[in-house]
Amino acid sequence: MTPRDLSSLTLEQLASLTSGSSTWQTSDLPGMLRALTLSDGPHGIRRQREGADALGLHQSVPATCFPPAVSLGSTWDQDLVTRVGAALGREAQALGVDVVLGPGVNIKRSPLCGRNFEYLSEDPHLSGAMGAALVTGIQSTGVGACVKHFAVNNQETDRMRVSADVDERTLREIYLRAFEHIVREARPATVMCSYNKVNGVYASQNRWLLTEVLREEWGFDGLVMSDWGAVNDRVAALAAGLDLEMPPTGTDQQIVDAVDEGRLDPAVVSASAARLFALADRTDGARDDADGTWDVDSHHELAREAACAAAVLLKNDGDLLPLDPNAPQRIALIGELARTPRYQGSGSSHVVPTRLDSAWHALLSGLGTEVRLDFAAGYRLDGTPDEALTTEAIAAARSCDTALLFLGLPDAAESEGFDRTSLDLPGDQLALLNQVAAVCPRVVVVLANGGVVSVADWRDRVAVILEGWLGGQAGGQALANLLLGVANPSGRLAETIPLRLADTPAHLFFPGQDGHVVHGEGRYVGYRHYDTLDRPVAYPFGHGLSYTRFTYTDLTTEQAGRNTWRVELTVRNTGQRPGDEVVQLYTAFDEPQPTRPRRELRGFTKIRLDPGQARRVAFTLTERDLARWSIGHHRWTTDPGPFTVEVGASSRDIRVRAELVSAGDGLVDELDAMSTLGEWLDHPVGGPVIGALLARSDHASALTQADPTLAALARGVPLGKFRTFGIGLTEDVIDQLIAAVHKGDVYHD
Amino acid sequence: MTPRDLSSLTLEQLASLTSGSSTWQTSDLPGMLRALTLSDGPHGIRRQREGADALGLHQSVPATCFPPAVSLGSTWDQDLVTRVGAALGREAQALGVDVVLGPGVNIKRSPLCGRNFEYLSEDPHLSGAMGAALVTGIQSTGVGACVKHFAVNNQETDRMRVSADVDERTLREIYLRAFEHIVREARPATVMCSYNKVNGVYASQNRWLLTEVLREEWGFDGLVMSDWGAVNDRVAALAAGLDLEMPPTGTDQQIVDAVDEGRLDPAVVSASAARLFALADRTDGARDDADGTWDVDSHHELAREAACAAAVLLKNDGDLLPLDPNAPQRIALIGELARTPRYQGSGSSHVVPTRLDSAWHALLSGLGTEVRLDFAAGYRLDGTPDEALTTEAIAAARSCDTALLFLGLPDAAESEGFDRTSLDLPGDQLALLNQVAAVCPRVVVVLANGGVVSVADWRDRVAVILEGWLGGQAGGQALANLLLGVANPSGRLAETIPLRLADTPAHLFFPGQDGHVVHGEGRYVGYRHYDTLDRPVAYPFGHGLSYTRFTYTDLTTEQAGRNTWRVELTVRNTGQRPGDEVVQLYTAFDEPQPTRPRRELRGFTKIRLDPGQARRVAFTLTERDLARWSIGHHRWTTDPGPFTVEVGASSRDIRVRAELVSAGDGLVDELDAMSTLGEWLDHPVGGPVIGALLARSDHASALTQADPTLAALARGVPLGKFRTFGIGLTEDVIDQLIAAVHKGDVYHD
Repeated sequence: MTPRDLSSLTLEQLASLTSGSSTWQTSDLPGMLRALTLSDGPHGIRRQREGADALGLHQSVPATCFPPAVSLGSTWDQDLVTRVGAALGREAQALGVDVVLGPGVNIKRSPLCGRNFEYLSEDPHLSGAMGAALVTGIQSTGVGACVKHFAVNNQETDRMRVSADVDERTLREIYLRAFEHIVREARPATVMCSYNKVNGVYASQNRWLLTEVLREEWGFDGLVMSDWGAVNDRVAALAAGLDLEMPPTGTDQQIVDAVDEGRLDPAVVSASAARLFALADRTDGARDDADGTWDVDSHHELAREAACAAAVLLKNDGDLLPLDPNAPQRIALIGELARTPRYQGSGSSHVVPTRLDSAWHALLSGLGTEVRLDFAAGYRLDGTPDEALTTEAIAAARSCDTALLFLGLPDAAESEGFDRTSLDLPGDQLALLNQVAAVCPRVVVVLANGGVVSVADWRDRVAVILEGWLGGQAGGQALANLLLGVANPSGRLAETIPLRLADTPAHLFFPGQDGHVVHGEGRYVGYRHYDTLDRPVAYPFGHGLSYTRFTYTDLTTEQAGRNTWRVELTVRNTGQRPGDEVVQLYTAFDEPQPTRPRRELRGFTKIRLDPGQARRVAFTLTERDLARWSIGHHRWTTDPGPFTVEVGASSRDIRVRAELVSAGDGLVDELDAMSTLGEWLDHPVGGPVIGALLARSDHASALTQADPTLAALARGVPLGKFRTFGIGLTEDVIDQLIAAVHKGDVYHD
Repeated sequence: MTPRDLSSLTLEQLASLTSGSSTWQTSDLPGMLRALTLSDGPHGIRRQREGADALGLHQSVPATCFPPAVSLGSTWDQDLVTRVGAALGREAQALGVDVVLGPGVNIKRSPLCGRNFEYLSEDPHLSGAMGAALVTGIQSTGVGACVKHFAVNNQETDRMRVSADVDERTLREIYLRAFEHIVREARPATVMCSYNKVNGVYASQNRWLLTEVLREEWGFDGLVMSDWGAVNDRVAALAAGLDLEMPPTGTDQQIVDAVDEGRLDPAVVSASAARLFALADRTDGARDDADGTWDVDSHHELAREAACAAAVLLKNDGDLLPLDPNAPQRIALIGELARTPRYQGSGSSHVVPTRLDSAWHALLSGLGTEVRLDFAAGYRLDGTPDEALTTEAIAAARSCDTALLFLGLPDAAESEGFDRTSLDLPGDQLALLNQVAAVCPRVVVVLANGGVVSVADWRDRVAVILEGWLGGQAGGQALANLLLGVANPSGRLAETIPLRLADTPAHLFFPGQDGHVVHGEGRYVGYRHYDTLDRPVAYPFGHGLSYTRFTYTDLTTEQAGRNTWRVELTVRNTGQRPGDEVVQLYTAFDEPQPTRPRRELRGFTKIRLDPGQARRVAFTLTERDLARWSIGHHRWTTDPGPFTVEVGASSRDIRVRAELVSAGDGLVDELDAMSTLGEWLDHPVGGPVIGALLARSDHASALTQADPTLAALARGVPLGKFRTFGIGLTEDVIDQLIAAVHKGDVYHD
């Protein structure tokens, strides 16, 4: 993309381009620049009808409602998600949308976050990989993607003001990492800043975030827009690197005034305007097919495929599932959610679907004639008690062979705009579950929810739990296919299911108070927390059962460069059905006093294997996979030392492992007078120097040969502080020591 | 104290007074100001012989070694600790010491901290109360006390450089609170700054800490000295409020130059010099009795009394203790620590005692002639395996009625200068414990340790655990008295004993890396963490058994002012022996999403009751007891609402409780355009105003009457952001709303 010559434009024209012209459109310059259309759309295009206000979220043009991010993340299938992205791009194209406002890749810090259904995972590697797949898919059509919400927008409570107080290491290793991966690997056309503050500075006017990190470090070359209404200070935002305010607030004159008064560099305005031109150029090709049509059937099929790949079989006692659709039997189908599916979340991502499958109808058409299916609603979605519904459901459960009990969170329980305060299913549904389980030994619970729900209190009372998440418009058919064995479950947990709310890492800090949310748990988010502290969970990250079984054998590691290895293993389907396995690679550090998470996901792949089939699976482990962010050096660093590469079927189901040793990146601290005696003694250059000196001084050598407690105490004392100890370490001697080790270069191999 | 006129002194003279003249002495001005002698001494005077270097920690003049702070804190007895303080003051006086460098009141953030034996508690209320008692006692003799280490010096690892990164609310509620209480209530002569940085700024040059908080907010009128070697920048330190550098570094000229060059206000130098004069005045009276002698016997007796009151009976299955000293029986006394007591910690607080009791000798003299006592060392304190010792110990255990097994941490395991990395007892001792427990059903474990040790793995194998901490020079006699029922245990845990290291609140953060230790757990330290998260512990804060039993009844509460209550209850000794009970008062808040600790200690009292005797115990609960630090308002604030006052025998043994309601302090947030719709609607003044407006606008009223999820979403949006929503909330309307509610006063009753 050649930078366009904007010298013919007036400052007023340039300034006008840095805000939209309407809620969903950018400003145009007739004859020079068209207006671009932006549309919500992380899992479906929400093209609003003309004249609808910004809050008219449910009045958009019909489009395919794919499963939301909670489900896409649970597929662990980059190819599938790329295809979903391409379908989203195609529909955007058809509807004249230039930029799709998605994917959302914020980390699921707490399961209470009301918008978790729009996010992919608690893990940044998985979020980054799946987010990159979506961007790649969307942009394959020429339409632009918009990665959001940048950054640390991990709750809805007070989201428009709260300061997320979080140390830089946690930012780098957790909250920025998915964004970094996507920017570097998938080159998104746009990034959307979040509403909240990051360490006291609004993301919309955070120069460190929007310019230093995003552009200068990661090389982002696209356009940064605001979340809708996220700008609080036009001039500060533009100066920080925010190119486009959405929607417009009629404050362009502030930009002009700021330039005129010397408070804003005019080059900043030109640069942002140029990025809008560049975005128009980049998305121009997509406009050829804006004919309003697409293959509705195949997109519905793709939505079904994604929903199917997303559902996680949490437990399946006695291999109760799959049901044989042709065996004579009596099935009680209980739960309003089987008839009235909850298939997406509320808020700006809400899509009007092209059609809608219910599990009930899908089951009716999938079951053979020998099967009797009795439906009972069991409860009302608004939570109103209804004894007649309960009675009917218990009766159905009592007389059936198997009860399929559809439970979940109603629309009002989770949404953009507020957070949950409990992980529990609605009380009336739990009561029904207990009554059904009391009369029926074969209960299959099928869940519909965008955020994780507690299962610990009731899971022992049922034989099967199938977590269907929010399945999009074809989710009902997907669930029927899984229950009847037409499809084999292959979703894996992209987030831990905890035993109880108080176990969750952010429990003491979420959602904050007084305008601040402190990230006390730091980098120990999700399984990083539970695994490092060895705390029990209900179901671990990465968990998910299949109707078949897989073995992992023959792990080999081969060094492929400095701190780079090729890791291979054999995965075999030892069961009776074809199935997909998600092979997960973790790096693991076992430290008595943790300085980093116990294990971290660094690779995964989803493979399909027929019964008896085996395949060799390969991963490449790089130095960055071993790196941590050094707060002292403000850079990624790789420490030397042993670690373990673990491959398994969940973070707690490691099947094969190997011990490896990192060479480190050679970063060595420079020594000075504030370096401790211990650091001097342990230093590759300083050690011999100070050792020789200590050997010449009776007093000084006493420091290291005294009784062990005194020697240990002395090791912690900065060398310069020995000046007053009368042991020969005078100012001059210390200066000579520093001169002797100072090489002007902190790298020593 | 009248400020002295220092106008006759030269700048050089003034500057010279801001550093010491030697390791333990301040500078003098002949004829005007004497040199003051400072001495380590939190639990005994460590007056070093002339000519000893600073590291000659074990070569001091003999003085009574009272139990270290770990034990004094466990007594929960302010009167007793005041008497210990007075004895310390008397010995200081006798030895010509003007200022005793103690007490240490840092919070026991992690049980791994190597210097925990020098600190009082994990709880700031208990630390403050016991620290104030020590200061009051010491200063009753005219000698000055020195409260240390100010502040957030909660670990030894990298203590001279590490930045304790901790939010202000945590600072105020936890880490500064004991200091604040002591400064306000006991008026210590001096405060010692710590080595470490607080949020990036060395405590020694932290003006916010040393001047704004300590002097301006709390009214401290004494002298601030450095920890030994804590000054890194003379001028910055003096400017920040550090009056006295210890020991001297010969850098007084830097002060003179800084004043000459206009970088330092000369008034700062005069003020610090004046504080040294004031300190000399204040401690002058104490010099009359510097005769080198004191009542060695009575001080030893006091040391025994304190050790006795400090030991905590953790478990006593079947009331195995006390042993009847006159019943015919065979007792195996096992463990080198019964012969060679570990009675204090290592480092600068190490005292050369005037005498030393061992438990073995004390038991020998306390047991009747019908008792056979077999001693077996069992292990070596240096950890060297010795099979002969093991064999002898097992044999003794096999043939005894009761085994008294003395275990603990050797000197090398914990000290000033380094932290532990494990909570376990030494492996050889644990092996011995298992072997003894295998052959003897009646095992009494007696512990000697300064920091908490794990008991969870072995406590079920023994009948009794008596935690003796470090008992000072008379600790051996105290333990014998407790074992034989001459005394009744009355110590209570001043810190939680966790089940395992990974359960401790700071486990993920301690001791930090890259020069930073992040206080991720924030205010949830100690029982505040375990109780808020409802996590199991081995023994809770406040726990301790007695040979008698107490009941708590008849709680009454009486409002005694706004947010002030008088709380009374009856405590009765229902057992067979006289004994001391520690009655603990907590305020408790039960929140599904915690914003403050589940419960916090706000009062305690230790009372002696004869069998059958009852007493009415009274507490006063004040508004400050209910307050939290508001990060938004930078002040203490009391929220309105219900809370519980709980009184019990530990944080997990609450016996009586009452529900009360705080009226709050009337602090109400001012409304503006960044206040959310929900804040407007809920506001006492703004609510009616915005309500009336919304009622007049169809579009706007839709905000609150839409479907529940949209209404909830709208509640979280700042009012000013509705300007672009086209619903009548224009800039003008919003300005009018703000004008309507703005009273220029944020208090509304």
